[in-house]
This record gives sequence, C-alpha cells and structure tokens, in this order.
Amino acid sequence: MTIVKMNAERQDVTALMAEIGRAARAAATKLAHTPTKQKDAALLAAAMAMRANVDDILNANAEDVADAVKNGLTPAMIDRLTLDVKRVEAIARALEDIAALPDPVGTKIAEWDRPNGLHIERVRTPLGVIGIVYESRPNVTADAGALCLKSGNAAILRGGSEALRSSKAIHASLIEGIVASNLPEASIQLVPVADRAAVGEMLRGLDGNLDVIVPRGGKSLVGRVQDEARVPVFAHLEGVCHVYVDRDADLDMARNIVLNSKLRRTGICGAAETLLVDEACAATHLKPLIEALIAEGCEVRGDAAAQAVDARVKPATEEDWRTEYLDAIISVCVVKGVDGAMAHIVEYGSAHTEAIVTGNAATAERFLTELDSAILLHNASTQFADGGEFGMGAEIGIATGKFHARGPVGVEQLTSFKYAVRGTGQVRP
Amino acid sequence: MTIVKMNAERQDVTALMAEIGRAARAAATKLAHTPTKQKDAALLAAAMAMRANVDDILNANAEDVADAVKNGLTPAMIDRLTLDVKRVEAIARALEDIAALPDPVGTKIAEWDRPNGLHIERVRTPLGVIGIVYESRPNVTADAGALCLKSGNAAILRGGSEALRSSKAIHASLIEGIVASNLPEASIQLVPVADRAAVGEMLRGLDGNLDVIVPRGGKSLVGRVQDEARVPVFAHLEGVCHVYVDRDADLDMARNIVLNSKLRRTGICGAAETLLVDEACAATHLKPLIEALIAEGCEVRGDAAAQAVDARVKPATEEDWRTEYLDAIISVCVVKGVDGAMAHIVEYGSAHTEAIVTGNAATAERFLTELDSAILLHNASTQFADGGEFGMGAEIGIATGKFHARGPVGVEQLTSFKYAVRGTGQVRP
Repeated sequence: MTIVKMNAERQDVTALMAEIGRAARAAATKLAHTPTKQKDAALLAAAMAMRANVDDILNANAEDVADAVKNGLTPAMIDRLTLDVKRVEAIARALEDIAALPDPVGTKIAEWDRPNGLHIERVRTPLGVIGIVYESRPNVTADAGALCLKSGNAAILRGGSEALRSSKAIHASLIEGIVASNLPEASIQLVPVADRAAVGEMLRGLDGNLDVIVPRGGKSLVGRVQDEARVPVFAHLEGVCHVYVDRDADLDMARNIVLNSKLRRTGICGAAETLLVDEACAATHLKPLIEALIAEGCEVRGDAAAQAVDARVKPATEEDWRTEYLDAIISVCVVKGVDGAMAHIVEYGSAHTEAIVTGNAATAERFLTELDSAILLHNASTQFADGGEFGMGAEIGIATGKFHARGPVGVEQLTSFKYAVRGTGQVRP
Repeated sequence: MTIVKMNAERQDVTALMAEIGRAARAAATKLAHTPTKQKDAALLAAAMAMRANVDDILNANAEDVADAVKNGLTPAMIDRLTLDVKRVEAIARALEDIAALPDPVGTKIAEWDRPNGLHIERVRTPLGVIGIVYESRPNVTADAGALCLKSGNAAILRGGSEALRSSKAIHASLIEGIVASNLPEASIQLVPVADRAAVGEMLRGLDGNLDVIVPRGGKSLVGRVQDEARVPVFAHLEGVCHVYVDRDADLDMARNIVLNSKLRRTGICGAAETLLVDEACAATHLKPLIEALIAEGCEVRGDAAAQAVDARVKPATEEDWRTEYLDAIISVCVVKGVDGAMAHIVEYGSAHTEAIVTGNAATAERFLTELDSAILLHNASTQFADGGEFGMGAEIGIATGKFHARGPVGVEQLTSFKYAVRGTGQVRP
C-alpha cells in the first residue's frame, strides 16, 4: 500500500470516528431524559429481535469462526468467539435482565434542607458517551450496549475484528429494538471497520464527544488504553487476588474457600492467584491446603516452607508473586500473621480482591479496614467479585481505580450526578 | 545561566519532587486509618499554633507583600496576598470548623445482604495523595491542607511563588499541629521551591505517588493543569453562569435574584455572567431588570432587544456570550421561552451553575431536569454555588467534570470507597 493511500484511509477513519462521536453526543442528549419505560421497551424489543434473527446471527458467527480457525486462533479464543442457540438465548435474556433493573437516572442520591429554606437534591445523571473497546466476545456488544442505554448513556462499541460479523449481526437486533422504541439510532453505535486507527481516535476522545472508555479484554489491550487514553478509563489491568488463611482459620472452611477461589473458574479476574498461610498455623494447615490444590489438578509454586511440605511444589520466583496466571496455577507463601499478609498484598497485589479466612473477628476487621483493595472479603471466596453476585445486576466490568467507579461497574456506576436546588426567591447575604 | 547548570537544577527539582511524592504516599498509608480524634486534634493544635505564631506569619507576609508591590502586581493580587490579624484568625477558625466536620472515612455509603448470607458494605476510603496547585492566596495552604488531612489524604501543596514566605509560615503552624498529634510530618507538605518545574512534576504524577490534582486559581493555571495532567483533576475552568427570567417570573423576585447573582461578589465562579429573559415577558421585565443592573453600577452588554430598551446598553458580541467577566459586567439576551434559554445555556455555558426564576413549577422542573450543569437552581441566586452554602462544610473547590466529584468538593468528595464483604464460609457454586 502506498503511503498516500494509507494516509487517505487514516483520514477516512478519523472522519468516520468524528462523525460517530457527534452522532453519539446528539443521541446522549436525548437519552439523558428519556423515560425509563421507553428505554426498557427498546431493550425488550431488542431481545425479541435477537431471538427472531438467531439464524442471521449464527450464520455471521460461523463465518467469523471459520476465519478464526483458518487464522490459527487459540482454542480458548475460538471458544470465546463461538455462538450457538443457547448462547444467543442467554444474550437475549441478559437484555431482559438489564431492562428489569431499576433505572438509576433521576434518582435522588441525597436531599436536605438549608436553614434559609433552600431544598437541595443530589440527582443521578448519565455520564454521556461511553466507549467500549473489547476483543472477541460477541456478547459484549449486547451487554455493554444495553447497560449504557439503561443508564441513559450513548455507547460506541469497538469490538475485535475477528468477531466483527457476529457483532454486526447482534448490533442489528439492538438497532431494531431502538428504532421500535423511537430512540435515536446512534444510541448504540458499532464501529463498522476493523482498522485499528479507530481505537486511537477513541483514546483521543473524539473531539470531546467521548466521556469515558471501558476496555474489556486482555492485559495488553487494557494497558494500552490506560496508558494512552485522554479520557477517564474504567478498568482493571489485572486481578492478582489473594486468599490469606489466618492462624484462627477453620481448616475445612479454608480448604473450601481456597479451592473455590482458585479453581471454580481460573480465567476470571476474581480468581485467586496467591495463597498466603499464617506461619502460626502452617504446621497444621499448609500441607492439607497444598495437597487439596494438587489433588484438584492445580500446579503449586511455593516458597521454601511450601516446598518443604510437598515434593510436588515447584519453587516460586519473585515474578510469581506478581503474576495473574488465569490458569490452574497458584503461588503459595507463608507469612507472619495478618501483618505479614497485608504487607505481601500491598507489595505484590493489584488492589482488586482479597479474602481472609479466620474465626477471629478482630483480625478480620484489621484486614478489611487497613487494606485498600476494591473488594475485601471475610470468610468467603474471591470468586464473588462480580456485579451479579453483589446484587448490583449486570456489570460492564470491574474497576480498580479509586476515582468515580470502583469494584463492579453496573448501571449506577455509569452515572454522574447534579444538584437541583429549589428556593422561593432566596438571595445570598 | 548555563544549560548544564539549568539541567542540574531541573534534576534537583525532579529528585526533590520524587522524594516529596514518596514521603506523601507513606504518610497517606498511615492517615488512611488514623482515628478521627487524632486528625481533629492535629487541626485544633494547628489552629492554636497559628494564633501563637501570628507575628511570624504577618512578618513573612509583609516581606511577600513588599516584593509584590516592588514587582508591580495588581492591587487585586496584592489584596488576595495580604494578611492581617483578622485574616489569620479567620484561617485558624477555618481549621477548627474543618475539625468539627464529620469524618467521612470509614462511613458506610450503603450496605445490604445477599440471599446466600453475604453482608456487603460500601465504605468510604481516602483517595491517597492530593496535590493542590494554587496562586497567591496564602489561606489555601491551611484550608486545602486541613481538608485533605480531615479526609485521610496526604497533601502536597504548591502555592504561588509570590506568597511562598507566607505559605511557609502558615505551613509551619500546620506542622506544629501535626507533630503534636503524632502524625507523619509528610501528611501536609509544602513544595519549598518556587521553580515552575515542580508543577510539571506534579502534572506527571510523581511516579504514581500523586492521585489527583486540584488547581485553584485563574483560567490559565486551571487550563494548563487540565490539559497536561496525567492524573485526575478536580476543577472548573470557568463559571459562565446564567439566570433565566421566565414568562411566569415575579418581577421583584427576578430583580433581587439577578442583582444578587451578578453583583453580591463579582469575582467568584458562581457569579452570573449572562441574563436570559423570556421574550414573552420582555415587554414588562426586560427594561426594569436592565435599569436595576445599571443603577447598581453594572455594565450591560445586550442583544438588539436589550439595546432597544435602554440607550446605555452596549452591543454584545458573540464572544460576550462565552465570557466569564468576573467583574460588574453582564450580557443580556432575549430568548424564546425555557427551550430558548436551555439552548443558549447548552451552546454557550460552562455547565457550572444556572438559575431559573419562574412561578411555574412545570417549567422549573424542565429546567432542572433537562439541563446538565453541576448546579441548577429554581428561584434562588447563583451565588449559593458554594460548599458552605450547601451545608457541606468547607470546600477545596468546585468541579464541573462529571467524574467522581461534581459541584462543591468537600471532605466527602475527597474520598473513594471499597467493598467490605463478610461471610461465613460461602463459596460460589
């Protein structure tokens, strides 16, 4: 390709993305005060359309999958990409679940009266235009678009090129629902080209028409977005989550929680990656915990103490303590009580999710109070780190930043607020 | 100065600021779970120290003022810089007021139970390290430092070079209080050098040791921080605030609110800059409102309709509608009802604060619901846009961004939150 042609195409993408941004802003202005019923009707109609169009969606997906096989994508990637009737039905049902959530927009977060008679309300408002940059899961197209719509935000979706046909087919059903409910078509836009320059334009903020970016995918995608975005980002780079088994832990409870935290699903961000065992109970707890993990097929990499109790334990390197395996591998370390555990977590963790197992309420309080991860659990599995499990409904992701949204990012976290002040002619003395 | 020497000094500032950042992070880690009493004791001791050291503070200030006069600073700048016994007492009393505020850290924002027995709490946590970049008001040193301390955050203060001696003297009293209460000295640090490179280092985030920047000062300072900061910013670039007088407005109430919004204090960000009058009441309301403004010494710049009712009205240019005068000047425009008013505000406003004067509740609701400025008032002066007036206590500033903090930024807005989840051994199915 000549440089002239490349520049021309680059300019085309810039112009296309600018136009998408303007259309999104115009749609967002309307969505900000669209009645709940009208938004919900769009989502329900989209779910119906999804079911009616299941053949189109599966045909488009089959083409994507065929290309993926041809291009040598990994089995895990192909699995994430592949749809079937059951998965399409799950996508449709997720739209209905989102429609059933309470509408955050317009709700009062707080209200109070002033001595001068002013009545002050803090009222939820949408954020505006939300950009979602994701990889090969086509269901994100529907989930993320629906969460934005429900919270009164316009969405700009930029999915992975390997799922573009699937995403377009799903997006067509969303548009059917949006049009049926008389909302602006630009309420949920899908970037129609695979050109990577489109992501660069989104990171630069589309001339002020993009308010926040949510990256969904692997560490390299999230890292690029966090490093380069000129607008706020809701994300977590990784979840190096810990389970700390304290001297006052019941061994059976500890074993259940450790196995579940690590192995229920190894590929999610709330999966535990490191087990910390209090030296005061290492003599009784360390060996059975390691044996249980190995018996369930988990590779164990440990410090000297962990290696000493089982010959199958491999030596852990300094790098292991910082690693999010997302696989059936765990690092194990003996620490000096809750202080040692907290020091290890501060040093090596990613401030996502940590659990303590202990029967000692005072020790648990210290762990929950002094650590500053997004989610801290006492006597429960780290795999509960999930908006649905928290009862917050569907989530667009989990954030580890401390600004605006933290932990599961659901419809409430996709809103801002404003102050509505009602008076009777008050002026300031 | 040789380039070699400049580079050496630049490197000194880089090293100095990196060290300040590291010390702040270490202090923040302790402050995050310092008991309320200990923080309040530090603030009360600092107020006492401020009174005991009043001579030192006034002597240091006199040197700053003498230099300012020599360097030809404007009378307004010199007024902002100048301290006297009364102003020092006001600074001390502000510290006591901040000590008396409720401590946001550790308070539960929400809590709920899950069907599986998990108890979930959303708990306020400090943000971490807050940088404040300000100009010549020495009182910001005490106010901002105290607000950060109260909310469990470490503060890095970078005041204007013209007030450096005053700020150092005030800071010395803060440190007395901090040391008396056994808190880390680095809880509130003042950048001790006037070199502008220090601001650049703060904008780059001090190697991850600065979590948010609050600029306090003129538009060029705030604009630079917003453009260049690599960390979140709580700020408003400007307050182009509007008063809209609707067809259903009582004239006397409208006159009171317009005069107060514009003229009570013209230099604050909540001062009105543009008056919008409904064409349906222009015949009765426009002339008396303009006459009242002119009678109070306000210059009026208007559209053709405003010029037609009073020969003293100067023509407004397109630029006037976008201008924050911060002076006794107002732009006046006749609009087509509330829709015209809202269109004008969206086109020209800065999303800070807008007021509607009307006896029609439905019209007021549209104005409060459909507009998306940080603060919207019905039948009240725009000059209420202030954390103290809102009953939120002292504020570190007013934010017009939609992320995290919006409107007055008080101690609550200087916090994040985390989730504390308590279980009895729950694992995820």
